[in-house]
Amino acid sequence: MPSRRNARANPVLSLFFEPRSLAVVGSFRENFFGGDVLVKSLLKAGYKGKIFPVNPAYKEVRGLKVYPSIQEVPQRVDLAVVMINARSVAGMVRECGAKGVRAMIVVSDGFAERNEEGGRLQKELVEAARQEGIRIIGPNTAGVVNTANGFNPCAYEAGYYRIRKGPIAIAAQTGMTNPQAFPYPELRFGVSKICDFGNKCDVDECDLLEYLAQDSDTGVISLYLESIRDGRRLLSIAGRVARIKPVLVFKSGRTEAGAKASASHTGSMAVDDKIFDSLCRQTGILRLEEFQDLFEIPKVFASQSLPKGGRLGIVTFTGGVGVVIIDKAATYGMSLTTLSPKTRQALDRIYQGLGNMPVDIGPMMAAVKNPFELYPKILEAVAADPKVDVLFNVLWANPADIVVSSYLKAYQRIKDHLKKPMATWVYGPNSEVSADLTRQVEEMGFPVFNSPEKCIRALGLAYQYSRIRDERTVQGARSKVQGTEIPPHQGRGSLIGRK
Amino acid sequence: MPSRRNARANPVLSLFFEPRSLAVVGSFRENFFGGDVLVKSLLKAGYKGKIFPVNPAYKEVRGLKVYPSIQEVPQRVDLAVVMINARSVAGMVRECGAKGVRAMIVVSDGFAERNEEGGRLQKELVEAARQEGIRIIGPNTAGVVNTANGFNPCAYEAGYYRIRKGPIAIAAQTGMTNPQAFPYPELRFGVSKICDFGNKCDVDECDLLEYLAQDSDTGVISLYLESIRDGRRLLSIAGRVARIKPVLVFKSGRTEAGAKASASHTGSMAVDDKIFDSLCRQTGILRLEEFQDLFEIPKVFASQSLPKGGRLGIVTFTGGVGVVIIDKAATYGMSLTTLSPKTRQALDRIYQGLGNMPVDIGPMMAAVKNPFELYPKILEAVAADPKVDVLFNVLWANPADIVVSSYLKAYQRIKDHLKKPMATWVYGPNSEVSADLTRQVEEMGFPVFNSPEKCIRALGLAYQYSRIRDERTVQGARSKVQGTEIPPHQGRGSLIGRK
Repeated sequence: MPSRRNARANPVLSLFFEPRSLAVVGSFRENFFGGDVLVKSLLKAGYKGKIFPVNPAYKEVRGLKVYPSIQEVPQRVDLAVVMINARSVAGMVRECGAKGVRAMIVVSDGFAERNEEGGRLQKELVEAARQEGIRIIGPNTAGVVNTANGFNPCAYEAGYYRIRKGPIAIAAQTGMTNPQAFPYPELRFGVSKICDFGNKCDVDECDLLEYLAQDSDTGVISLYLESIRDGRRLLSIAGRVARIKPVLVFKSGRTEAGAKASASHTGSMAVDDKIFDSLCRQTGILRLEEFQDLFEIPKVFASQSLPKGGRLGIVTFTGGVGVVIIDKAATYGMSLTTLSPKTRQALDRIYQGLGNMPVDIGPMMAAVKNPFELYPKILEAVAADPKVDVLFNVLWANPADIVVSSYLKAYQRIKDHLKKPMATWVYGPNSEVSADLTRQVEEMGFPVFNSPEKCIRALGLAYQYSRIRDERTVQGARSKVQGTEIPPHQGRGSLIGRK
Repeated sequence: MPSRRNARANPVLSLFFEPRSLAVVGSFRENFFGGDVLVKSLLKAGYKGKIFPVNPAYKEVRGLKVYPSIQEVPQRVDLAVVMINARSVAGMVRECGAKGVRAMIVVSDGFAERNEEGGRLQKELVEAARQEGIRIIGPNTAGVVNTANGFNPCAYEAGYYRIRKGPIAIAAQTGMTNPQAFPYPELRFGVSKICDFGNKCDVDECDLLEYLAQDSDTGVISLYLESIRDGRRLLSIAGRVARIKPVLVFKSGRTEAGAKASASHTGSMAVDDKIFDSLCRQTGILRLEEFQDLFEIPKVFASQSLPKGGRLGIVTFTGGVGVVIIDKAATYGMSLTTLSPKTRQALDRIYQGLGNMPVDIGPMMAAVKNPFELYPKILEAVAADPKVDVLFNVLWANPADIVVSSYLKAYQRIKDHLKKPMATWVYGPNSEVSADLTRQVEEMGFPVFNSPEKCIRALGLAYQYSRIRDERTVQGARSKVQGTEIPPHQGRGSLIGRK
């Protein structure tokens, strides 16, 4: 049974993330992949539900009794994870149906993504599932993760098992966002759910969006799509969900060649990219530019307030990066701000010209004895300026202790009262120092991105989302007058709250 | 005097990179910035030329005698590096002129980038330099580096002093590519020269291109530009240089807002982006997309052969990334290849379906006992296929020892006879394992990029350059008939040779 928390969501969908009992059907040979890895992952992640391994050739795995068939499992099974030959999967659906199982994750591949025969097997599987009243994730999926309950049924060896809890949900038409593919413990803003749809013969992006919209652990949804199963339904659902939580989508298969490749990856037909772009505009879906954006861009939504406008403030050690950034910001409708007279004067008193935007600390470095002692004051002044809506901060990670400590002091000072989003780029002559500073800044709740362009992408999308929210609020108010239901939204201000 | 090696280049330009003696004019206070740091950098980098610190307030710095004025330096001075108040710089130019100095690096800022008065000071500086017959790099520059002779006059503390030697030259209208800003010892394909033009009141991108074209230590030129001083000259010079060596340019100031910011960064006017695009097409300049491309994309030119065509081969552990990549490849005119029947059969014998492009090892992982033992055979077969011109390889950095060792074995096998460019993307659940694998693969001479998109950008630009070379070869041959001089070029095949 699903927990009360998600009672409003599709209760069957909850079985995929919150099963009280799980059957694992497949080989338990020790390997990089398979049932043995999956059981080990669950045990190490602290999953408290019941685990029933199923395979006639084994007696025991990792201290758990193995059942010869799913029928012989003595208790109720909420979810079955299946890793057997594609040809046997439809039969297993029948067996699961007989046992009363209502949700299956089909990890097995060799379906529509492989060849015509696989396509037939997939049809057979869908048909069987429909008849048995079973919902399917997959086939050809790396499965799901729920950090809330340690449900991490990962069939690929990742080498780690506990994933940091947090508000970011990642759902993808690929296994490339599952634990074996990304160092999630280092995603410092944490994860709520992960899901690989695989070939999405049944459960698809729309189902996931509905589920994640209602999931109180999820604050931002990051989605990788190659294809869309039902454009009309996505239009309706994404439009609703985007009012509640930011929905970020990276869609591949943009070119004809890419679309063709998608067909052989998950057996799905890609959608024309222009149509998808229009769908994004209509629904408020935010479009990502690169694959790794899926992990990184959500950090800004997971930790920062939404901006109240598009006036960009920059604090940098180099004018050059300022220029790169202003270029990129313009594509998101943001523009360089001018500091208010008070801030400007305060900065110019520290060093003549410092009050200009971008605030460039570089020239001061050559002229002032202890520039880093002044740093916290400078950042604080710019952060507090009412004419700055969005803040891009560049940190030069010089190996000297005073440098790093002055940055941390500055972040500490603004940490509790900053009501605008800030993105940080760290650069410098020593990777270890940069990585360490990055870690410390992120542990304080401020996202760091590994390129200046990515900082602006994150801030630009936050600005884009704040405008979508505004439009929706106005539209929602209008709808209310006409008697239409207003969807929930949190308005401006802190989205989730800094940790 | 310039070395014989660069005799054909502008001999004065050589003074900036190969001075036999150097005057350092500025403060020698211990700090993050200044003469003390600069002298320390030179000493630690092993520069063998003479160093003459100049400042009436000091007697000695780092064991070197400090002279009260440049006139009092008892020997010839090839180059002066100046870090004094902007108002005093023109006067220093006169003093240098009297001393017979012919090249100056003006680190001081507060010139055209600052305000009107700075603009006047810059004009004064240019006028004085012209009268004295002195060439200037800067003002507002972080200076130069030459790895061949340990000439690393860095005024900003970097914490390291020796930079790996190699074929990549980086010249930029910013100090953001100088040693204090990037961990060059980790740029495993090495650096020949670094130069920050600063405000480029005199020496500019055209001078640098001419010098680097003739520099036998330089194999690929990476250039950051905000503005262009002389479009006609650049058109002529870049066209010639691009026949000899790849010229990669990242240009900011693309939008109007960015152009305005550029004016206040280095006091220069940006050029219309469309005009610049057309200039790139005419000259064969390859355009970079992101700031960090300046450091990363040259790696493919520094280590790989140029491709003979645009047929892309992919070896991956995930079909999803294959789709992303094919999309991106299409924008560079590359398309997914089909393996030749022989390779296809060989791979299908290992695992049915493995011979399809992209070669996806993922499905095999679930079905084969020791997939990693088979890995070297798979990569070798694809690498050797004559229908693959360009190779994108995705490595799943699983923490298990056998995984990493099988990858390294595979690279070892193809290392000495691969005659096509390969780019590698490493991903996985553990950052340390990924970083370690990256290092090992790069030490073997194969570039690794930190995103799949960047891999394709590197390969796509290599393909673009191979086509430019071809066109030029044909044009060159035609010119010969008409009696025009043919510029040197190396044709296809290995550009620089793997280390």
